[in-house]
Amino acid sequence: MSVEKQRAPRGPRGDRGETLARIRRAARASFAAHGWEGTSLRAIAREVGVDPALVHYYFSSKEELLDAVTTPPEEWLESIRAIGSTPLRERGEVIVRNVIWTWRQPEIREVLESTILTASHEPRTREKLRAFLTTSLLPAVADRVVGDERMLRASLIGSQVVGLIMLRYVWRIEPIASLPDDELVALVGPTIQRYVSGRLG
Amino acid sequence: MSVEKQRAPRGPRGDRGETLARIRRAARASFAAHGWEGTSLRAIAREVGVDPALVHYYFSSKEELLDAVTTPPEEWLESIRAIGSTPLRERGEVIVRNVIWTWRQPEIREVLESTILTASHEPRTREKLRAFLTTSLLPAVADRVVGDERMLRASLIGSQVVGLIMLRYVWRIEPIASLPDDELVALVGPTIQRYVSGRLG
Repeated sequence: MSVEKQRAPRGPRGDRGETLARIRRAARASFAAHGWEGTSLRAIAREVGVDPALVHYYFSSKEELLDAVTTPPEEWLESIRAIGSTPLRERGEVIVRNVIWTWRQPEIREVLESTILTASHEPRTREKLRAFLTTSLLPAVADRVVGDERMLRASLIGSQVVGLIMLRYVWRIEPIASLPDDELVALVGPTIQRYVSGRLG
Repeated sequence: MSVEKQRAPRGPRGDRGETLARIRRAARASFAAHGWEGTSLRAIAREVGVDPALVHYYFSSKEELLDAVTTPPEEWLESIRAIGSTPLRERGEVIVRNVIWTWRQPEIREVLESTILTASHEPRTREKLRAFLTTSLLPAVADRVVGDERMLRASLIGSQVVGLIMLRYVWRIEPIASLPDDELVALVGPTIQRYVSGRLG
């Protein structure tokens, strides 16, 4: 949960949003590259070129800052919830197209990518990611899937989606990194469709 | 490539292997958690409880240490090469069983897991991982696959395998984390088999 304060802006009007965005961007990069211990509000202030007091004005602690920059954007959460109301027989294609769309939105991509990178070496972000996957993301993509195997199907979907994101977008392994969208859908969609509605095992 | 020196051991006979293993373990954990900048030979020496000179004796620089602890073990490389000589029609099952076997070998698992975690925020390890995937691992798992689509098939296999590793072993998302081996093979094997020899698109 983001816990930014809604006080009146400091400094010239109009600057607030831009400065806050720069603080968030610097924080994301620092947590992803240096983890929890290697990140400080002071160093972020230096990076952005503002007084440390201004960073403290927006985020009262490092916990609050990490929490804010690893919280999924509402627009993305809506797109995930929308997946749950699509017909099951189209779910494989819908999920791949959602991944492609997500990684085209710079603000969403930045948050998700830095969360994945930070989670790999920062225990509290890993726990947050695990809780989010288990209680929100996987149930949403498997919404309307019936039977005892619903969460098993959801975690299999997750395994293909996460690996796709790692190879195509994070590590940029060719040729999957440059594959046109429609080819990607034709190749990976059927895998996910089988996990959604196919016979398992 | 590991570049450890083959000089005579310092200290009591027999201790060499154990001390070196402890240095490597501490280095892996430090690179994975704190990255390149947050790791020093001095801090590793402190962690292990030896003189910094001893760490320097085995590894003359931080580059050398990072290189040594992110180099895939020979036993694992052999298991990957062996995949290439299995029949194509069994390749899906063989690859899932190799992943399961790999993660049961503590020494191999430690190196691979810390390489994946370090690669997420340490650029030179990410490049090394990318080069290894592209020039060694993916060609090996797709060995004997014919046609122009060989590397495309290989990167699709990689996407499913990497996601499986992330969800089952690194993030430990249930129920995939606790799934019995044979069920995992029955569920994920057919996905990989389609990427190996199925009709694509």
